[in-house]
Amino acid sequence: MARVNANYRKLRAGYLFPEIRRRTTAFLADHPGARVMRLGIGDTTEPLTPTVVAGLRRAVDALADPATYTGYGAEQGEVPLREALAARYAGHGASIELDEIFISDGAKPDSANIQSIFDAASVVAVQDPAYPVYVDSAVIGGRTGAGTDAGYEGMVYMPCTEENGFFPALPEGKVDLIYLCSPNNPTGAVATKEQLATFVEYARKTGAVIIFDAAYAAYISDPDLPRTIFEVDGAKECALEINSFSKEAGFTGVRLGWTVVPKALTCEDAEPGELNRLWFRRQTTMFNEASNIVQQGGLAALSEQGRKECRGLVAYYMANAKTIKDGLDAIGIKTFGGVNAPYIWMKTPNDMSSWDFFDKLLNETHVVGTPGSGFGPNGEGYFRLSAFGHADDIRVAVDSIQQNLNL
Amino acid sequence: MARVNANYRKLRAGYLFPEIRRRTTAFLADHPGARVMRLGIGDTTEPLTPTVVAGLRRAVDALADPATYTGYGAEQGEVPLREALAARYAGHGASIELDEIFISDGAKPDSANIQSIFDAASVVAVQDPAYPVYVDSAVIGGRTGAGTDAGYEGMVYMPCTEENGFFPALPEGKVDLIYLCSPNNPTGAVATKEQLATFVEYARKTGAVIIFDAAYAAYISDPDLPRTIFEVDGAKECALEINSFSKEAGFTGVRLGWTVVPKALTCEDAEPGELNRLWFRRQTTMFNEASNIVQQGGLAALSEQGRKECRGLVAYYMANAKTIKDGLDAIGIKTFGGVNAPYIWMKTPNDMSSWDFFDKLLNETHVVGTPGSGFGPNGEGYFRLSAFGHADDIRVAVDSIQQNLNL
Repeated sequence: MARVNANYRKLRAGYLFPEIRRRTTAFLADHPGARVMRLGIGDTTEPLTPTVVAGLRRAVDALADPATYTGYGAEQGEVPLREALAARYAGHGASIELDEIFISDGAKPDSANIQSIFDAASVVAVQDPAYPVYVDSAVIGGRTGAGTDAGYEGMVYMPCTEENGFFPALPEGKVDLIYLCSPNNPTGAVATKEQLATFVEYARKTGAVIIFDAAYAAYISDPDLPRTIFEVDGAKECALEINSFSKEAGFTGVRLGWTVVPKALTCEDAEPGELNRLWFRRQTTMFNEASNIVQQGGLAALSEQGRKECRGLVAYYMANAKTIKDGLDAIGIKTFGGVNAPYIWMKTPNDMSSWDFFDKLLNETHVVGTPGSGFGPNGEGYFRLSAFGHADDIRVAVDSIQQNLNL
Repeated sequence: MARVNANYRKLRAGYLFPEIRRRTTAFLADHPGARVMRLGIGDTTEPLTPTVVAGLRRAVDALADPATYTGYGAEQGEVPLREALAARYAGHGASIELDEIFISDGAKPDSANIQSIFDAASVVAVQDPAYPVYVDSAVIGGRTGAGTDAGYEGMVYMPCTEENGFFPALPEGKVDLIYLCSPNNPTGAVATKEQLATFVEYARKTGAVIIFDAAYAAYISDPDLPRTIFEVDGAKECALEINSFSKEAGFTGVRLGWTVVPKALTCEDAEPGELNRLWFRRQTTMFNEASNIVQQGGLAALSEQGRKECRGLVAYYMANAKTIKDGLDAIGIKTFGGVNAPYIWMKTPNDMSSWDFFDKLLNETHVVGTPGSGFGPNGEGYFRLSAFGHADDIRVAVDSIQQNLNL
């Protein structure tokens, strides 16, 4: 008789964003005609740029023509796309070879599925708060015990607090896999090269592997902040990196990302090259390349003109971030992030719980945000606002918060 | 210290198709200028149809326009696409609800990842020969022991032989998950409704779950053969079904598929609805929807005109199948399949091993096929030829086999 993977039953609640959607839908049912402003999920709103659109159209046209139609593509993704990404890494001083880059349908699946190549007994460390996918995929994979109010047993939480500038101290005790995300979702904090170097040194010393999520790297404007962990000496021996076109090029629904697994990466029982080969085996067995149409859109986004246009998209959302941050600061709400990252992390007023503030904000101002506690125990008492939205809507949302939030 | 998932080390060889690619590349290096005809991997060669192309273009245009741009889509896939699929099931006499359909980026990932919702100790049964993804994903997930020449320990192989018409007898002993594929890859055999009913009855009696791969259903022309397992009474209580646009609409590189997990589906420790919810949780946590562009292409393929055009594609490849089958029959090679399925399964001449015949066929005729042994122990001594290819190329390949194969 078949039985279920009982690890799913350890999961404490529905995935965060469906729960937000549920509460928002319920609010709208009770308030027909209300205009709800969504600063919750980090969902892009601005159209694809002309160069990307042209690339996508060319790809569709090629598939319509017997002379240029193609079926299954290259296993790790189209070579020109990987070449363009390698060139970008080179621009950041990191030498990445083509067979170290794996094109995928996004950072979310990669950040979950990457655990497949590591032992089921791996101890996983996450920043707390963190993107829920890291934690939930560890739970599903049996890498934690039961869930409690303090988090999942067996999982190592690295507190990110106002005191440490939302970058964690090194973990205490044995850990095997360390998720780091910078610019951080949800706190908007960006790690310095020195901060990343402490983790690289730790991982090399202890044999841990860093899973570095750089999905928001394009939002960094400060030239001194690292865009990739591979800017840090020695990172290729202890880290892999995940990235995405979602937020940089507006591909949230279009779907494209990539993961770099350096051949130099090792762990306790893997020689250089093996982890790279295992991810190749995972992806060729359980995945089948990103859409060929979408890959051409990504390639266009990496062209000179494409990059210029994407910088325009990023600047647009970052202007929103400033609107939000300045607007909240003006009414005495304490905010973090929002400078080199599209997320504003705010302290809830009067020490309200995150979900209580969610309901209050929705009811009083019709603004939807994301409860900090949904990102982990240390997110309690915080709240995330996303800069992804039409500038006019963001302005209306901030005005509504300023006028209607009963502080 | 991090350690690898040692299950990967049990895998006996590289995934089948990379190995074929390797040998083909080596042959070409030794024979510069040789024209190699690829009847190996089942890769579509004919352009997308006009209706599909128009749907894709509309989707790209919508994303270029601020008024119609969208980011993240509906969690189980766009509603109109699921409605169109539900209508198709209704046409086969199966009532499937929208929240039982999960749109994905293809049947391959779904057929591997679906194991995630079942216990890690599940005993997996596969037809032998079978699509390697079922087996390899079970190995990676720790659901087998070591690999031997007779297959992986702990895995149940259900022999599909000439004697049983390439449809297996019921498994002996306890099994939890049963993969069935019809029309079958690689044998081209198509299960009758009565044959499927024996497995449905068995699964309901023993509490096993059937994972039914219907990726080639569009290739059935015989009106008496079932297009979906849900044509069988009681199947919704014991089976889920995976399908794809790859072969029906030429989406091998475009990427689109779907899985139906009925709410009625149960297993030993799951009430109705739970397996559906677990797959929802798996997909919302570890996947992020198929590309919105591609989903519009799929929707167009399911329109009346789109379906008509796709039937034309299928007819094109099935004419190829007839060319191959007739051509091999004419020189005394024993063939199976190729009538309601795009694969021809042939007995190797003189009891050659499958890989020896691969090398012989490549060297003597410059035709690439797929060794049957790559699909499992009972595939040894057989060979698969794929009907996917330009008709002219297929004709040249068959002529070359007829003229140059030294029998």
